Amino acid sequence: MPIEKALVVGTGLIGTSAALALREKGVAVYLSDVDAHAVRLACELGAGQEWAGEEADLALIAVPPHLVGERLAGLQKQRAAPAYTDVASVKAEPIADAERLGCDLTSYVPGHPLAGRERSGPAAARADLFLGRPWALCPGSETGADALRRTRELVSLCGANVVTVGAGEHDSAVALVSHAPHVVASAVAASLVSGGDVPLSLAGQGLRDVTRIAAGNPLLWRKILAGNTLPVAGVLERIAADLASAASALRSGELDDVLDLLRRGVKGHARIPGKHSGPGIRAFAVVQVVLRDRPGELARLFNAAELADVNIEDVRLEHSTGLPVGVAEMSVRPEDTGRLAEALRFHGWHVPPVPVGTPAGR
Amino acid sequence: MPIEKALVVGTGLIGTSAALALREKGVAVYLSDVDAHAVRLACELGAGQEWAGEEADLALIAVPPHLVGERLAGLQKQRAAPAYTDVASVKAEPIADAERLGCDLTSYVPGHPLAGRERSGPAAARADLFLGRPWALCPGSETGADALRRTRELVSLCGANVVTVGAGEHDSAVALVSHAPHVVASAVAASLVSGGDVPLSLAGQGLRDVTRIAAGNPLLWRKILAGNTLPVAGVLERIAADLASAASALRSGELDDVLDLLRRGVKGHARIPGKHSGPGIRAFAVVQVVLRDRPGELARLFNAAELADVNIEDVRLEHSTGLPVGVAEMSVRPEDTGRLAEALRFHGWHVPPVPVGTPAGR
Repeated sequence: MPIEKALVVGTGLIGTSAALALREKGVAVYLSDVDAHAVRLACELGAGQEWAGEEADLALIAVPPHLVGERLAGLQKQRAAPAYTDVASVKAEPIADAERLGCDLTSYVPGHPLAGRERSGPAAARADLFLGRPWALCPGSETGADALRRTRELVSLCGANVVTVGAGEHDSAVALVSHAPHVVASAVAASLVSGGDVPLSLAGQGLRDVTRIAAGNPLLWRKILAGNTLPVAGVLERIAADLASAASALRSGELDDVLDLLRRGVKGHARIPGKHSGPGIRAFAVVQVVLRDRPGELARLFNAAELADVNIEDVRLEHSTGLPVGVAEMSVRPEDTGRLAEALRFHGWHVPPVPVGTPAGR
Repeated sequence: MPIEKALVVGTGLIGTSAALALREKGVAVYLSDVDAHAVRLACELGAGQEWAGEEADLALIAVPPHLVGERLAGLQKQRAAPAYTDVASVKAEPIADAERLGCDLTSYVPGHPLAGRERSGPAAARADLFLGRPWALCPGSETGADALRRTRELVSLCGANVVTVGAGEHDSAVALVSHAPHVVASAVAASLVSGGDVPLSLAGQGLRDVTRIAAGNPLLWRKILAGNTLPVAGVLERIAADLASAASALRSGELDDVLDLLRRGVKGHARIPGKHSGPGIRAFAVVQVVLRDRPGELARLFNAAELADVNIEDVRLEHSTGLPVGVAEMSVRPEDTGRLAEALRFHGWHVPPVPVGTPAGR
């Protein structure tokens, strides 16, 4: 029996995005939120209709981590659905809350979609937020097969990929790949608060990349970190120790210790999966072209690529502070680079020589 | 008298890129490097011809920081040019070396173009590497007016913008905005070296951004850091202290201390100039559209934008791990968002509602 009716409790970015995805698949969606304005906005965006107590096939609880247990208990009391899942970015805390509050654990599948944006709220939602993203599910020994089946179907309807993982392992993992890096980005950005404007006038894309996520909502992140304190603290302590050692090595001129850290960084960076790094997926080559800031420039560029019968797999515009000019880096199949470069040069663009053997995104 | 002949000593990424830029402006360029292979490759790329002792109007010394003084002394002995500048990413060290080696300081203008790539070597060079980028010049009390004029002209020929700053202030500034962030990115990436694959399967764009620069060449960065040890150590100590405090606050549940760090991070991040943040330059709005991975998809997209008479100022493709689908984020003038969204929807694309009041790149 497929999911025909879903209840989404919490119409923020994640809840509303899931609702939009379900609507696109023809699922009837009921929406609920303590903030009446947020529900109304989500309804206006086409995410569903306001919940009036109807029974659903599955309830998605998309509220902050510390409220999941309480909300689950209330919904189960109302018999809102035969299956429940949540989207909290930590898992041990809501599971412990659910146990403490005497919730029925057979109908609850702890979940966490690995998707998000710097912006929050229903207005930032979009149906494709979860497309191709991992969605962690942390079933425990008591989790029922029917609840798990329904939750897996929800993930599939949202276009995401299930990653099954224990709750504790999940929390350690997100501490490592998400929560601690967020705090580190904040610390780098915080180092820029005082002082004059000259240092910032020398800033480049590297600093922008390192600190981008530091723009996230502090109150939201406070809640996320509050639910995962010990694993995050552990990762931060290791990073802080590496940085303190590097500082001390720099002061005493022992540059080989710093070199060791830089080399470990290269190794660790290479382990992060990229867009096209799945099994059987090939590396792409990068063709660069200098763009002028005139109307239709990108349209002309992609037209020329299409005429040359070259499919552009990815494009990145490099930023130039101040000047109305940029460089487009296009990822294409390695065997297409020559043909694309030739076609673009023919149409008058400046195309620097294509570096050999450099896969995209490395 | 404009620069007609330039000597570039060191044909790596920076030297070859400057040579290519000068060639595009019709300047005759002589190339020199201890690595005969690198010179030959730079010549083949059109960066100039091999130096045979000809006198130039200016010599650009593009060698690692610890070799600048020595190379400057040698070139001055040969009377290679009436003016010399370098591109080392630290400035106090080469100036001290030049003084120690008895160089003529009136003809030497210490410089540093703020441009680079993860790739290195002449094959990665491009003429537009410096377009719109800051290029720091650190003239001292002994620097001659003629040498400074020639160096400013070089910067201008490369399309970069002069930022005049004292050598000490320069080194502190790049420690803050470049060197320390690089070590921090390495430390975050290094934390991923051990452990299983599950955490990395949960990684998202945030982690990729924070760690991108950690892929840089460790030996090159060892040299850069070796020339700026104390300023970098100072910044790293402050960041390490912030992270250690955050870890301790997490362990003791004092989340408000962590909130303070997150808030300082938001403030510091907002100080970083973006692509379009110069005086008189306006904020852009972002229109998102869901792309399918079919040939010509981007061409169709930009054609539709051109037909709607909307100029796309910037584009960013969001990565989706695994799935052949993506989201293009197009920055346009705020008044164009409605027209563009309407046009794209008309042509069958899914365009989520445009968030109000969110400038691009924030």
